[in-house]
Amino acid sequence: MAPPTSSRYCVPDLRKERKNCSFNQEEITNLLDGGPEQTDFRRKLEDYFLKDPEFLDPIPPEYLSHEDRYANELRKACYMIRKFNEDEEVQQVVGEMEGIRRLIGSGLGVALTKDGNPLALHYVMFLPSIMGQGTIDQQAEWMGRAWAGEIIGTYAQTELGHGTFLRGLETTATYDPSTQEFILNSPSITAAKWWPGGLGKTANYAVVMAQLYTKDVCRGIHPFIVQLRDEDTHQSMPGVIVGEIGPRLGMNTNDNGFLLFKNYRIPRKNMLMKYSQVLEDGTYVKPPNEKLAYGTMVFVRVAICFDAYRQLQRAVTIATRYAAVRHQSELVPGAPEPQILDYQTQQYKLIPQIATIFAIHFASQHVWDTYQQLTGELHEGSVELLPEVHALSCGLKALSSNDAGFGVEICRLACGGHGYLASSNLPRIYTSTTAAITYEGENTVMWLQVARYLVKSFREASQGQPLHKSVSYLVAQPASTHAKKDLSNRGLVEAYKSAVSSMVAENAGRLQQYCDKGEKFEHAWNNCSVLLTQCAEAHIRFFTCDMFVHNVETLELSDGVRSILRRLCRLYMIYHITLNQGLFLRNGALAASDISILEGELSVLLASLRPDAVNLVDAFDVHDRVLDSTLGNWDGNVYERMYEEAMKSPLNKTDVPQAYYKYLRPLMKSNL
Amino acid sequence: MAPPTSSRYCVPDLRKERKNCSFNQEEITNLLDGGPEQTDFRRKLEDYFLKDPEFLDPIPPEYLSHEDRYANELRKACYMIRKFNEDEEVQQVVGEMEGIRRLIGSGLGVALTKDGNPLALHYVMFLPSIMGQGTIDQQAEWMGRAWAGEIIGTYAQTELGHGTFLRGLETTATYDPSTQEFILNSPSITAAKWWPGGLGKTANYAVVMAQLYTKDVCRGIHPFIVQLRDEDTHQSMPGVIVGEIGPRLGMNTNDNGFLLFKNYRIPRKNMLMKYSQVLEDGTYVKPPNEKLAYGTMVFVRVAICFDAYRQLQRAVTIATRYAAVRHQSELVPGAPEPQILDYQTQQYKLIPQIATIFAIHFASQHVWDTYQQLTGELHEGSVELLPEVHALSCGLKALSSNDAGFGVEICRLACGGHGYLASSNLPRIYTSTTAAITYEGENTVMWLQVARYLVKSFREASQGQPLHKSVSYLVAQPASTHAKKDLSNRGLVEAYKSAVSSMVAENAGRLQQYCDKGEKFEHAWNNCSVLLTQCAEAHIRFFTCDMFVHNVETLELSDGVRSILRRLCRLYMIYHITLNQGLFLRNGALAASDISILEGELSVLLASLRPDAVNLVDAFDVHDRVLDSTLGNWDGNVYERMYEEAMKSPLNKTDVPQAYYKYLRPLMKSNL
Repeated sequence: MAPPTSSRYCVPDLRKERKNCSFNQEEITNLLDGGPEQTDFRRKLEDYFLKDPEFLDPIPPEYLSHEDRYANELRKACYMIRKFNEDEEVQQVVGEMEGIRRLIGSGLGVALTKDGNPLALHYVMFLPSIMGQGTIDQQAEWMGRAWAGEIIGTYAQTELGHGTFLRGLETTATYDPSTQEFILNSPSITAAKWWPGGLGKTANYAVVMAQLYTKDVCRGIHPFIVQLRDEDTHQSMPGVIVGEIGPRLGMNTNDNGFLLFKNYRIPRKNMLMKYSQVLEDGTYVKPPNEKLAYGTMVFVRVAICFDAYRQLQRAVTIATRYAAVRHQSELVPGAPEPQILDYQTQQYKLIPQIATIFAIHFASQHVWDTYQQLTGELHEGSVELLPEVHALSCGLKALSSNDAGFGVEICRLACGGHGYLASSNLPRIYTSTTAAITYEGENTVMWLQVARYLVKSFREASQGQPLHKSVSYLVAQPASTHAKKDLSNRGLVEAYKSAVSSMVAENAGRLQQYCDKGEKFEHAWNNCSVLLTQCAEAHIRFFTCDMFVHNVETLELSDGVRSILRRLCRLYMIYHITLNQGLFLRNGALAASDISILEGELSVLLASLRPDAVNLVDAFDVHDRVLDSTLGNWDGNVYERMYEEAMKSPLNKTDVPQAYYKYLRPLMKSNL
Repeated sequence: MAPPTSSRYCVPDLRKERKNCSFNQEEITNLLDGGPEQTDFRRKLEDYFLKDPEFLDPIPPEYLSHEDRYANELRKACYMIRKFNEDEEVQQVVGEMEGIRRLIGSGLGVALTKDGNPLALHYVMFLPSIMGQGTIDQQAEWMGRAWAGEIIGTYAQTELGHGTFLRGLETTATYDPSTQEFILNSPSITAAKWWPGGLGKTANYAVVMAQLYTKDVCRGIHPFIVQLRDEDTHQSMPGVIVGEIGPRLGMNTNDNGFLLFKNYRIPRKNMLMKYSQVLEDGTYVKPPNEKLAYGTMVFVRVAICFDAYRQLQRAVTIATRYAAVRHQSELVPGAPEPQILDYQTQQYKLIPQIATIFAIHFASQHVWDTYQQLTGELHEGSVELLPEVHALSCGLKALSSNDAGFGVEICRLACGGHGYLASSNLPRIYTSTTAAITYEGENTVMWLQVARYLVKSFREASQGQPLHKSVSYLVAQPASTHAKKDLSNRGLVEAYKSAVSSMVAENAGRLQQYCDKGEKFEHAWNNCSVLLTQCAEAHIRFFTCDMFVHNVETLELSDGVRSILRRLCRLYMIYHITLNQGLFLRNGALAASDISILEGELSVLLASLRPDAVNLVDAFDVHDRVLDSTLGNWDGNVYERMYEEAMKSPLNKTDVPQAYYKYLRPLMKSNL
């Protein structure tokens, strides 16, 4: 979508909002896209794919049966790949994994395949697993066919009985040197692979994670390429039991599946052997560094952070435009009904979500950059940055999936009852965004990993050891004084440091006390774990504030953009500080009078940002088809569109439904 | 469901949990039901209806198309009414509105008609409106036919353009004395009635709320009985445009509809005239007391509170049983995987929800009792208690729908990925519970009404006027001292009083400051409204704590029940005090060291309540069919049931789906 021109039609309320924009919108768009060429690339892709009528749904998918919804999305997913494969022009634009990722990911992807693309895991997990964990020979054997779509794969790790705790997985791959094969088995019902997207009916191959046994010894979890279905008939192979796991809260066309093995044999060469190896005689060769597989997890988790804020962008765009179009109630008796965006309570719901998008963006970008640096160093054998970037990626994954999930829900609820309508698209955005809270590392488990890193760092600091940069503030802060506090951005960052380090110190002390009383460390840890997860969250929140301040002050920006980002940054910090004021009051980092001052400033900031709210969401440049919402279209034509969408209900095709004759009429006439 | 006997099968994990219950479960069951005879009544109803195979779904409704889902629920709804009408035995048991309410409400109702009963509004809104707002003659004319189901009605108030703000409704009813008729019109698209359940295709009548015009003067919103469809053909009447509004986040078989009028005429006698009247010549007669209609709103809002905690009961029963059956990860290296209920972080998610159920129950019961007293007094013309009970019912509606909605979501997320599966039933419980946040008075509007009452009361107190009981604590609290705090239950209630009254005082002062600076009161109010809604929430939270403490200490209870309720009450208070610690630290009601002590006690309470967690949810006595969950069944047979449910997917009927031949195969073979 090109930047909106003044000649495009929109309702008067939105025209008024758009008349005076205090900043350069395209600069914001480029900032979030990663540069003007990336914006250009995205718009070209959107234009190329969205103008194609094949990607239109014949009727809204909500009206289709479970089977027909799957078929409809599979149709579009296959067409998307064919279009990509067959056309040289688009190959030029998207001729790389990044292009495919965008066709599947949370921007364009959701406009093409609304409820999940059954081919997604083929591209985002199957291919990268072979690339990342296969030998050169294995890459040569599989990559060409997989890239061409001759075989379609998925990634089967989670089981019915085990998710985030990988060591608990039960599927076994036992090496038989007599035939040079692995024998795959699912020793119990809880060993069934459960959840992989595309596994149910779509994929004929999978990378399967299983406990490797050679010479009667368990060697831990390893990846295997496994054929699931006949390449010609698509029937499941003898020894393979595979199917679909049934409907979900959302993403119902992902084709999530289950998978069980009964003495199913695969050749030795199908174990992905870039790191570990099993020789012909069954000798097991360990990887040079056990931590090398860490990298992929960091990559996936940071990708989730970017996806999370893209989803929040959609929701807040819809809710903010709707809040400018919707008029309700009265501020001043007798005056016309105001736009609901004029209510401070509404501003408090929406504008912090806009700020959150930038906060997650800057923090994720930082972890992403650190990860790139790490990947470089890992190749040189250095693992110096690994624990820090691991902790940051775990924490940021938890924080951004949580903030985005609940942020979307705040936006949905801010639209009142109409946000409950499927045609607002907010239900679908919520049900897909919230999924990230539990997948790819359940958030509580993520917080506990961050907490472990914090406590470890705190103990090292107490022993005078040097700390990684992101936790260096944990070394003793100057004791709080009753002097006048510095409430500038930098002052608030310092207050955050002081408050979080006190919190970590208090709870590391509490942990030690339990141990001193004779509790085992593990039980003491468990007894402190609620407070420790709260430390972890406070630490990552501080990190996002710090990154936001840093970027706003150091990036090259025009005056208008810097001014609005500064106010959003300030709002973000004050929003979280006032919500968690106890943290700051407890150690005296801030006084009660400081909180009162910040509360007053919050009110001023909301009023100051209100006039640019619509301009900010416009600058997110989310295509109408990506929004896919009766409430959030660029033109603001809300009510007519809701009515039109309602008319598409199959129940509205006839005045009197068949069910009336069958059930209702006999009841109503039974007494006559 | 009779109380579980030891001979019933359950998995060993649950058998272990159930071995030692510290309290009398039946006493808790009776307490929440409202007495042993109410428990008996509920069990009889459940037994009678749930053993009937007509109420089983042929396949899980998620697999049906939108139309077929509607038809399936309408089938069961009609059957339910016929069964009720035709059988003398059940008439004896449920032969009253209360019985019907239970067949439709959130307990048994959800087991009978999962996604919403299209006949629900006929019983819970249409009939009561005629009863409550019709004259004796009107009741005689309509009640018999409506009760017999000869006509099916709904209640049409909300419009596309207006919800909670009733004065904004646009539908007009203009009296024409020449024919003694009202002419109904929808002057714009936003005037379309939108959302009423059963309106789309089911109802042939409705109570319609419209702006009454007589003698060219608008007299405000009044109720009219309007025929929408022909009683014989069920076709919509000429001048009536009616249909279904399309799919929603949940409750998709409620048959929510839209309705427009074009010069549609109804007889004068169809205006419900118990309070206001229009005489033959068009003379308008005002009601004796404008506030009399308030009562119904209080009734509906308290009913929502009860429904809300019943939904939370379902969710926490499922999640707690699952947490006892699920084993994951390790607490102590090398030891077997513990039940996830052993993790403090899991306990912190679930046990406060159990406590919340009692908190909402006691608070709602109090408002309900006060309302009963009020109804008595209203008949005597007294309106003394009205503002207080109105504010309490608004606030408690907001608090309990919010706590229940987000509490259900915490339970869903506590089940990890499996909570995302439809077969867990947690998605459906969430999507129906969250709806109450925006319907029947959007929560932010509710909080603002409470805030208005608080500020008004505070100002009256400052002028020395007497206050209602629930806000009497707003009169100046003794200044905080640095003396040792009393952390007993009573001490914490006093701390709450002190903290909330300080908060109200500070923000009433802030409001006054804005006014003193020359802002109009309405703008000053808007500038403070975020903080004022926070005051309102803190006030109602204090109220639930106060009621919980009061009931636990004054009810006649056995020692075991009192002990467990005391600990749940304590947990509830400490949970909310630590979450909102800033409130207490700011005015010195509690010191930082007090919060640390309470945090330590929270940890002890979780450990103390852990062994009875399953016994507590068992005591809620939610029938397996009401839970309807693979994760939450009484027997704990989680994984087998998940697998069985997955097998019901139509996609699993064949190994290879049709969509493979149509879309996937051509893609996979295109390069060969």
